[in-house]
Amino acid sequence: MIKNIKLIISYDGSNFNGFQGQVGKRTVQEEIEKAIKKVTGRDSRLVYAGRTDSGVHAVGQVANFLTISNIPPQTYKYHLNKFLPDDIFVVDSSEVDLNFHSRFSAKKKKYRYIISNQKFMYPFFRNYKANVSYDLNIDRMKEACLKFVGTHDFISFMKFSEGVNTVRTIDSIDIFQENDIYIDFVADSFLHNQVRIMVGAIVNVGRGLWEPDYIEDLFKIRDREKSAMTFPSQGLYLMEIKY
Amino acid sequence: MIKNIKLIISYDGSNFNGFQGQVGKRTVQEEIEKAIKKVTGRDSRLVYAGRTDSGVHAVGQVANFLTISNIPPQTYKYHLNKFLPDDIFVVDSSEVDLNFHSRFSAKKKKYRYIISNQKFMYPFFRNYKANVSYDLNIDRMKEACLKFVGTHDFISFMKFSEGVNTVRTIDSIDIFQENDIYIDFVADSFLHNQVRIMVGAIVNVGRGLWEPDYIEDLFKIRDREKSAMTFPSQGLYLMEIKY
Repeated sequence: MIKNIKLIISYDGSNFNGFQGQVGKRTVQEEIEKAIKKVTGRDSRLVYAGRTDSGVHAVGQVANFLTISNIPPQTYKYHLNKFLPDDIFVVDSSEVDLNFHSRFSAKKKKYRYIISNQKFMYPFFRNYKANVSYDLNIDRMKEACLKFVGTHDFISFMKFSEGVNTVRTIDSIDIFQENDIYIDFVADSFLHNQVRIMVGAIVNVGRGLWEPDYIEDLFKIRDREKSAMTFPSQGLYLMEIKY
Repeated sequence: MIKNIKLIISYDGSNFNGFQGQVGKRTVQEEIEKAIKKVTGRDSRLVYAGRTDSGVHAVGQVANFLTISNIPPQTYKYHLNKFLPDDIFVVDSSEVDLNFHSRFSAKKKKYRYIISNQKFMYPFFRNYKANVSYDLNIDRMKEACLKFVGTHDFISFMKFSEGVNTVRTIDSIDIFQENDIYIDFVADSFLHNQVRIMVGAIVNVGRGLWEPDYIEDLFKIRDREKSAMTFPSQGLYLMEIKY
């Protein structure tokens, strides 16, 4: 009997070259596929919900694989964690319908970006947040967030890629401060580097470099060069995939 | 003119073999001495306040070195940070009296231990806290802390070492919870692994494995084997040296 096993996976992206398998580079996918083989004795191809770039972390990445192994589905998390390196942790495992596909079945994705706003950042945090040493006005940043919500052409807020439909719909952006500043983005899908460039724009407004309305201008100008910097990968966390 | 330069240094201990220079291992001392040579053009020997074991972090390690360089003392922090790897950060630099010696002039040391008390710990924190998955009672842990304060023979709470005076005086231990549990220890000096073994004892009391009075028994029993486990280095931070 073939079973479809769904995994919820957390990982520290610092020492990975992203999620996807590429020859000769350490990736999350490769490490998990190796652990599955140790547990089931068989090769399995891991399907995952959202690619994360090098340095990007995950709290709740979702992946699935098909197997004929009889191991109770809920126990995969214990078995896999025994073999996984300490920068990957399987939070949960369960059996799902054979139709379930981590990527194609996904309805919403939630990403979080963490900004430290101090004169300097202690070295313990260098892989886990981005520090902005300028004064930031949270109310202005909230205004900036609201400009992004809804359906827009995000070509000014993506890493250039030929022949991509650049229209996306952002469901919500929530920003809150608890020592650090947390910005949570929810959408069906995001363009490459979209969250990190939107963070750049939100920070530019928070610093007073831009007026919030300039974000609307950028939707019309359609020019990456006139837009914000791409914020570093280490502040970005894939939080949750909703099905 | 010889100047004595005092540095306040923060580092992430994860990828270091402690502070002290040892041939063939990456150490904080060696990295800072290399950076000083790049800045002043001359060899300098760094004196530091407190040795930290492999994996232990520092928020406010103190070190000093003598130099005939004319570089303004307050600017060393900028110059050194340019050459230092990103897991070391010089927080401050200043000129001090020629008599000042980071280690011998030190009056008090403050260490912090950070405990996460969750069912599991996300992998981002694995180098920066220790997780205890048992239920912990903070009031019991406070009682345990109080047992340690004052002058005692800490032979049951140290890594064995021949011919060491094992009597130490703990000035204060403060414990507070803010999601994680923070325990701050202040004393003139600590024995090897003393803080990490005291944390083991405090956790044993918090879990209900030990009664707080058993700590007093251990002062009399004088037996490391009957005492607590050494908690892992990654939860330990050298916070401050007082002069």
